[in-house]
Amino acid sequence: MDFKNILIVGIGLIGGSILHALKERSFSGRIYGIDTNKSAVSSAYELGLILNKDTNLPKELDDLCVIISVPVLSVEDALSQIDQIINKEDVIYTDTLSVKSSILEILKTLDSRVLKQFVLSHPIAGSEQSGFFASSPNLFEDKLSIICPHDNNAEKDILRIEEFWKYLGSYTKKISASEHDDLFAKTSHMPHVISYSLMNSLYKDLGDNTFFYSGGSLEDYTRIASSDPIMWKDIMVSNHEPILSSLKAFKKSLDDLSNLIEKNDSDGLVDFFSEVKNARDKSILKKED
Amino acid sequence: MDFKNILIVGIGLIGGSILHALKERSFSGRIYGIDTNKSAVSSAYELGLILNKDTNLPKELDDLCVIISVPVLSVEDALSQIDQIINKEDVIYTDTLSVKSSILEILKTLDSRVLKQFVLSHPIAGSEQSGFFASSPNLFEDKLSIICPHDNNAEKDILRIEEFWKYLGSYTKKISASEHDDLFAKTSHMPHVISYSLMNSLYKDLGDNTFFYSGGSLEDYTRIASSDPIMWKDIMVSNHEPILSSLKAFKKSLDDLSNLIEKNDSDGLVDFFSEVKNARDKSILKKED
Repeated sequence: MDFKNILIVGIGLIGGSILHALKERSFSGRIYGIDTNKSAVSSAYELGLILNKDTNLPKELDDLCVIISVPVLSVEDALSQIDQIINKEDVIYTDTLSVKSSILEILKTLDSRVLKQFVLSHPIAGSEQSGFFASSPNLFEDKLSIICPHDNNAEKDILRIEEFWKYLGSYTKKISASEHDDLFAKTSHMPHVISYSLMNSLYKDLGDNTFFYSGGSLEDYTRIASSDPIMWKDIMVSNHEPILSSLKAFKKSLDDLSNLIEKNDSDGLVDFFSEVKNARDKSILKKED
Repeated sequence: MDFKNILIVGIGLIGGSILHALKERSFSGRIYGIDTNKSAVSSAYELGLILNKDTNLPKELDDLCVIISVPVLSVEDALSQIDQIINKEDVIYTDTLSVKSSILEILKTLDSRVLKQFVLSHPIAGSEQSGFFASSPNLFEDKLSIICPHDNNAEKDILRIEEFWKYLGSYTKKISASEHDDLFAKTSHMPHVISYSLMNSLYKDLGDNTFFYSGGSLEDYTRIASSDPIMWKDIMVSNHEPILSSLKAFKKSLDDLSNLIEKNDSDGLVDFFSEVKNARDKSILKKED
């Protein structure tokens, strides 16, 4: 991982964890970071994680890697904010966000060099906690980082972004932006929709006593309902269609199971539960292979 | 914990874990165990966890604690199976099951001594794994065990069952059977319904590749969909009404959130997510108090 300069735009949980991980690995290049939250910038400076203490950065940083780590709908603003300090010939951009197609659409409306030099990525790592103070140096260790190359990317740029994530301890896989969004609508965005809905219905009934008798597993099961509201609003808005279609599929399964419960259909329930158990156990084995 | 004899009926995950925990604590009384699965009985015997190597037990065991740990709808069979070997004057019964009112209803149809001497309990501990070979000696450590006393119980019997769970490392709380069933319909049975439904819809779409890009958290989120199908069919059937009513509340919340997503209502989504996050964070603090 041989960038001369790195600039993190957005020093929250993910951006901050990248900074901590670079420091822990004694990265030899220069590291800068900006955020609309000034105290995150000054804290990162005081901890020796970035070289700038405010938003004044050196101009025209050469061999630069820019990492965009802001909520999805703030990507365009973030890019225009750094427009003045970037040497557009000598930069590779990436991001860390949970939605890819809508970012690609934004890039297509911008300077074609930005599109070409932007390698979309998504580290599958996070926490229900948010903000710089929740960040940690080993957030990416042994975690998957997805890369979504597009037609305008150069192979060497894709490779450098893969190297970046491997340097932080991740392993990488490449899929297209639209595959990514379909898949994560089902496997990540849906569990968040479910978790927010479950917590909403429980709290209406049980109030602050929701967890009083739960013994721990309900806390785990609703954990992601404490995730950052702005980040998740942006994901819902920008991955709209895939989320609605996987919601529809989930509601169909939920209705099928509800009907079996309503009819007290013992055989149907055992069949439903057994098939799902087998499906899950098989899928886990397939992954471990 | 001073019972002279303990008999576990059902040597699965929970029954087996009780046996392991008693051995680890060098319990001084005699311990017996039966199960319709003969290999569970012989394995427990070979490991020195029980004194009987088959289903032939000494008759009229005195100062006996019987622990019923079979699927909910098998409780009546289990009780009639041990009817011949029990000294009905000198026994306290308990159970480990996830549903309480329907067991109480069964007990009310039986010999009034059984009802009187049966203290309902429910250790909030478990795993998606099932069977004797998944059992472990510290399953109950630092876990809540709920006791559901009823009008016919004697205070001294309730105390002895509380002592039993404390001996295994649990702490106890007492609530009524109907409170228990309403609460656990919401906080445990609903998450299982959701998890089975989510896994069902994902597998229909993604097949064995369901977990291929998930990076770990989806496995956690669907973990309980690998739970024992018979056990969960019995819970759905015997806690029918409370589960249907909490399903209705969950579907209402899910529809509310779906509508916000469908309408791309950014402000509504931020409000929904923020309220839920605050509700969850407050409820966690209240529990920790």
